[in-house]
Amino acid sequence: MDWEARLQEYLAPRHAQVNAALERYLSESPPRPRVLPDAMRYAALAPGKRLRPILCIATAEALGGAAEQVMPTACALELIHAFSLVHDDLPAMDNDHLRRGLPTVWVQYGEAMAILAGDALFARAFELLAEQARLSPPERVVQVIDLIATASGVHGMCGGQVEDILCEGQAVSADDLRFIHAHKTGALIRASVLSGALLMGADTPTRDALDAYSRALGLAFQIADDILDDTAPTEQMGKPAGSDRARKKATYPALFGIEQARAYAQQAMEDAITALQPFDNRADPLRWLAIFAVERGR
Amino acid sequence: MDWEARLQEYLAPRHAQVNAALERYLSESPPRPRVLPDAMRYAALAPGKRLRPILCIATAEALGGAAEQVMPTACALELIHAFSLVHDDLPAMDNDHLRRGLPTVWVQYGEAMAILAGDALFARAFELLAEQARLSPPERVVQVIDLIATASGVHGMCGGQVEDILCEGQAVSADDLRFIHAHKTGALIRASVLSGALLMGADTPTRDALDAYSRALGLAFQIADDILDDTAPTEQMGKPAGSDRARKKATYPALFGIEQARAYAQQAMEDAITALQPFDNRADPLRWLAIFAVERGR
Repeated sequence: MDWEARLQEYLAPRHAQVNAALERYLSESPPRPRVLPDAMRYAALAPGKRLRPILCIATAEALGGAAEQVMPTACALELIHAFSLVHDDLPAMDNDHLRRGLPTVWVQYGEAMAILAGDALFARAFELLAEQARLSPPERVVQVIDLIATASGVHGMCGGQVEDILCEGQAVSADDLRFIHAHKTGALIRASVLSGALLMGADTPTRDALDAYSRALGLAFQIADDILDDTAPTEQMGKPAGSDRARKKATYPALFGIEQARAYAQQAMEDAITALQPFDNRADPLRWLAIFAVERGR
Repeated sequence: MDWEARLQEYLAPRHAQVNAALERYLSESPPRPRVLPDAMRYAALAPGKRLRPILCIATAEALGGAAEQVMPTACALELIHAFSLVHDDLPAMDNDHLRRGLPTVWVQYGEAMAILAGDALFARAFELLAEQARLSPPERVVQVIDLIATASGVHGMCGGQVEDILCEGQAVSADDLRFIHAHKTGALIRASVLSGALLMGADTPTRDALDAYSRALGLAFQIADDILDDTAPTEQMGKPAGSDRARKKATYPALFGIEQARAYAQQAMEDAITALQPFDNRADPLRWLAIFAVERGR
């Protein structure tokens, strides 16, 4: 079997586990408030790769753990990702109407409800992170909360989105582009891997290797996303093709050309796999995910 | 000295301590991202009562603690309050232009930056809550994070704001009004008191008494706010007087008339003070705050 078949075999049961857990974590619905719980479910349960939960789980498994041991944290990462998409899509931000092939939350529920659904998903994520303390020592849980909060905020995701907006339509340097990618998407991918490591009590050299892996992986995914946006047809993307270019967003193909962008993605994939050298074959899913990140973009 | 002079004497140094800590917690500013750290400071450092941090501190002190022992949590509560104001003021929500006598964050920095400043303040709050683990046992910190995340989300502040929006311009029942107040503002006031109690390791009867106090206090503050909005001139409010009425918001004076609203506020104050009967004079600031909540509204 090639890496792709083995990855799919690895992903299928975990994807189902994560979806079932997300469904469970978002199921409680007293009569009030109205609408908001539906908007939260609409945002978080839409079909998706569940990349961040899978990374947290695959890292825990690479270190001898099991998916169920880190599930609250894995799902919290997905809720934070969903929250960021809901807010990014708003008219005042990227003004996107389609996401994963469906109307965005603000189109479906209105702007006020979309802002509050994002906020409430973010809050729910921290409830789940606290719930992780039923499964893990509280001092590790507190470290994970610090890691994920930092990755989400001014020096992580929010900061990256701000620079992305400020750079729109501007002449963008390679430094700008690296900052945007490392923060807007890279920070939470890194936190997904490292939270799995922290919960398993990984030592510093192990965490450092996974840190290097996660940075290279985040870069590989982002460059491949940039290439996909530039080259794939709309039906494959679930959003209008070429929308980044139309909006003059900072992207790797725009700055370096498509061939050089592909070379950078390939290099990032190799860096990610090199970083995993100290690990045994339980880390294979992390390796396949690095290949998948880049092959998708071809 | 009467209660008012003693309360002012109590508040002045703690108010200064909280402001200094907020300043410190929001001071770090690498070159990027641009603008966002300023927008966060603008939102969180604007003059204000700092009611939520003071409640956390006063509760800790009533149980033998000191302000510095709970400062990260106290400031996290203020950041969450600031985040909620920034988002509530947005054009898609309450469309407010003035807050505490100054242009609201979206007027000053634009809508996209206001959404992200709110998000980043919320994230920073959870970083501070994690930082509390340097001062308190991590299992207590995790309980506080669960409490505060729940109070902020779909079954707390966000849920209350949703019902407030859905009820605007509608015929509102006493049940609707109670739900809105208990969630939109009550939940975080309750969490402010209970987080101080949890960090001090309070036992269940103590926490139950403080729970009753905080619910009654939140109600007293909210009814008095409703009355103030209805009766005080603009310069005293820092926002246009009668704006709730103009917008047909659900309020106590609108539903019950001003006299009955005053009677309910008085009753809530008495309930708050009664709940503190088991406590000695270290709980006096909590008692004065209950009186202050209502006297302000006269």
